[in-house]
Amino acid sequence: MPVRLSSTGLVLDGQQPVQNLLRFLDTVMRGIGQVMLQNNSYTGLLFLLGIFCNSVLFGGAVLVGTMVSTLTAILLGAKPTLVRDGMFGFNGALVAIAVIYFLQPNALTWAYVILAAACTTVLMAAMLRLFDVWKMPVLTAPFVFTALCFLLACARFGRLQSTHVLPTAGLPRAAAIVEGIVTTSTVLEGLFNGIAQVFFQGSVITGVLFAIGLLISSRRVFIIALLGSLTGLLVAWGMGAAEPAIRSGAFGFNSVLTAIALGGVFFVLDKASAAYTLLATVATAIVFAAVSAALEPLGMPALTLPFVLVVWLFVLAGPMFPGLRLAGDA
Amino acid sequence: MPVRLSSTGLVLDGQQPVQNLLRFLDTVMRGIGQVMLQNNSYTGLLFLLGIFCNSVLFGGAVLVGTMVSTLTAILLGAKPTLVRDGMFGFNGALVAIAVIYFLQPNALTWAYVILAAACTTVLMAAMLRLFDVWKMPVLTAPFVFTALCFLLACARFGRLQSTHVLPTAGLPRAAAIVEGIVTTSTVLEGLFNGIAQVFFQGSVITGVLFAIGLLISSRRVFIIALLGSLTGLLVAWGMGAAEPAIRSGAFGFNSVLTAIALGGVFFVLDKASAAYTLLATVATAIVFAAVSAALEPLGMPALTLPFVLVVWLFVLAGPMFPGLRLAGDA
Amino acid sequence: MPVRLSSTGLVLDGQQPVQNLLRFLDTVMRGIGQVMLQNNSYTGLLFLLGIFCNSVLFGGAVLVGTMVSTLTAILLGAKPTLVRDGMFGFNGALVAIAVIYFLQPNALTWAYVILAAACTTVLMAAMLRLFDVWKMPVLTAPFVFTALCFLLACARFGRLQSTHVLPTAGLPRAAAIVEGIVTTSTVLEGLFNGIAQVFFQGSVITGVLFAIGLLISSRRVFIIALLGSLTGLLVAWGMGAAEPAIRSGAFGFNSVLTAIALGGVFFVLDKASAAYTLLATVATAIVFAAVSAALEPLGMPALTLPFVLVVWLFVLAGPMFPGLRLAGDA
Repeated sequence: MPVRLSSTGLVLDGQQPVQNLLRFLDTVMRGIGQVMLQNNSYTGLLFLLGIFCNSVLFGGAVLVGTMVSTLTAILLGAKPTLVRDGMFGFNGALVAIAVIYFLQPNALTWAYVILAAACTTVLMAAMLRLFDVWKMPVLTAPFVFTALCFLLACARFGRLQSTHVLPTAGLPRAAAIVEGIVTTSTVLEGLFNGIAQVFFQGSVITGVLFAIGLLISSRRVFIIALLGSLTGLLVAWGMGAAEPAIRSGAFGFNSVLTAIALGGVFFVLDKASAAYTLLATVATAIVFAAVSAALEPLGMPALTLPFVLVVWLFVLAGPMFPGLRLAGDA
Repeated sequence: MPVRLSSTGLVLDGQQPVQNLLRFLDTVMRGIGQVMLQNNSYTGLLFLLGIFCNSVLFGGAVLVGTMVSTLTAILLGAKPTLVRDGMFGFNGALVAIAVIYFLQPNALTWAYVILAAACTTVLMAAMLRLFDVWKMPVLTAPFVFTALCFLLACARFGRLQSTHVLPTAGLPRAAAIVEGIVTTSTVLEGLFNGIAQVFFQGSVITGVLFAIGLLISSRRVFIIALLGSLTGLLVAWGMGAAEPAIRSGAFGFNSVLTAIALGGVFFVLDKASAAYTLLATVATAIVFAAVSAALEPLGMPALTLPFVLVVWLFVLAGPMFPGLRLAGDA
Repeated sequence: MPVRLSSTGLVLDGQQPVQNLLRFLDTVMRGIGQVMLQNNSYTGLLFLLGIFCNSVLFGGAVLVGTMVSTLTAILLGAKPTLVRDGMFGFNGALVAIAVIYFLQPNALTWAYVILAAACTTVLMAAMLRLFDVWKMPVLTAPFVFTALCFLLACARFGRLQSTHVLPTAGLPRAAAIVEGIVTTSTVLEGLFNGIAQVFFQGSVITGVLFAIGLLISSRRVFIIALLGSLTGLLVAWGMGAAEPAIRSGAFGFNSVLTAIALGGVFFVLDKASAAYTLLATVATAIVFAAVSAALEPLGMPALTLPFVLVVWLFVLAGPMFPGLRLAGDA
């Protein structure tokens, strides 16, 4: 039969129109799954479900973004195996949801989404070549750079209006204070919001659906993601971060991604790499605070830049420490 | 005869003093031409004429800057073929005009110009080595980094005063509005100002002379440059940028350079690369808006950073897309 | 005998506990010496003495930071020869003194110091791999990035309070004025403060002890360091920098490090490289002013970023200029 189900999605052998369409849709789902580094179309489907549960608008944006960036890669003739693994989809997914989250949706905004998604594909290709020298993963850097660029540009463009979810531009305060009291509900909500925030969703149910999506792909990744969210949350709590920020999952989503990347993808998990991953996950929470403060004068959000920076450094440093074993060819 | 005219400038075979002087002057003109990626001393001469038409001060600055950076390269023993092609001239030309444009000219400012021009040569050499790994062009990055550095430093130096052309430092506004109405005169002036602004000149006549300079070098480059300026202008208009900014050519000059670089220099122009160049040129206008907003808290101008960033990425990504054919060894 | 004194520190052959302890302590001292690029434990000891003379708190911080980052490298299995040369110590030393200098010391701050010092080791390893492509030195970049990150993060963490030594966040002023009058005492104090400021110490006596530490390692480095401090000071004076900044050594410490690195470590000192080093040292003072202005909206200090940037560029450019001879394998 021309269509089979493997453990990570559809397997299609032929080149008939229906097969090509199914292959494209499966590729799009993998692209959505790759947002959390899972080359698994069921996982991607669950992520999409989780987003649609919270908002049809955001679900639509993710679909459009992933399709546009994947199509751009196909049109430009990018390597089919890379395309098929969803490597040109996840940045489009994220940039689309970011633009629709931060800007008021109208026809021009959707044109902006399409342009941004197409740009992530070029940026992805550029960074794949750049990082090939060190065999380093590109991660969600194309999304971060494209989104920051397209959001910053709005300051000059009168026909694009922000949704006022963007942080207010301001100079850093001289001193921070401990705001609010962290309770059990803060921790529980923060734990799952931390996973949901990877796609800008502030919803515990979405977070639970995302977690189930990860569980389908790998039990190890599921546990690591929860531990990552918890670690980010605990660091923020210990340091005296504001309770609303902790509850919203703001300190969690970058740590979730760092934990998945280092503990679940790039290193063989043993005692040494578990300690290494823990250090990276703690560092991610601090880098999140730093990046968020550094972007304050610009009124820009940190997005997943902290995750990207920390994982780059920890993956790059890996081979210098013989105690750590790299998983396959990272 | 020891002096001949080729289609791109003087050809000199001997090593007599007069020949060396002529060779140096021809090298300086090529350096000025290289500001728009044209290794052509007639083009450089026309650019210089265009600037002198507008201002003797700026013309002098360009001459001094190009000479200093070229001489620094010669003194340090840089590769003669690179020097001869004007590769160590164009960043000096731009940094000199930028310093004189943004700072009040006095003896110390001219010393500052000389120092800055010399620094661009070291930066150029450093970046040539850095980018050799990917066979990527350095473009005007040494100018951008040196100029930003030397202009930022003035905040600490009481003997250097700005000409108040620098943007006022401020935090980004919450919302942009559509300012002014774009008319035919906006478009016509913006079109040529966009070319003139490559050298910080707000003058249609200068823009026309620059365009003729490009025409001397290549008809294709001439057309592409005009289309680049137009594209930047139209994107800005469509997005609701302020009319005075559109008229001044602010949204044009980076797009002009991107169009020349991708459509005229680094890729063989066919349908695929034309579409690729168009995407890059549109992206350049958005990146210009973004960089200009990002530098707002510092009161710094975007210079040609948007062009540099976009062309780096699109050239870097090129080989990942087999549909695009690179021109020779970019 | 199992312990001998060489011209740069202890030589230990065996693996007995006492020998291992002595070797570790000698490694820690080399790490402190490497802050000024000296692989010499006597020099490191004198630096430590100089700091303790000024403040027991800072001396303790340097010891803790160097030990933690060195131990992290040992635990992760970093290359023993690199560890032994103090290459994983100096960034820990600096990040620890920076955190204790800028944040009020309490138990959480010390935990923060330990975490930051451990992070510099990962960052060092990452950058060693990154820069191996160009055989470029990492310098104090891991310190700079880690310190900026950990200090910026405090804006979000209510349990860490600044000591109000950090610059006040603000937008750059439109114009600088010449503040105060430079006298002989400004020059003399500035000269030695410039050396002391490498470790954030504003003390002439500490500067003198540091200079003696350099003299123990190399007469050439001693002279170059003083000339570097003087150059930075004179550039600042000539440009009209504020007198208190000149006196405090703020314009000196980056120039000291640039002079040592280029004139004393990476190039064979002859006429050509002396001129090259002078250009770099002058540029460092300007880059210091620029970086310090660029970080003003964030309320962050420039640290040794100017030194790092300038030396990277000048070392990178080196092989492009055949007139300059690289010292061994830089």
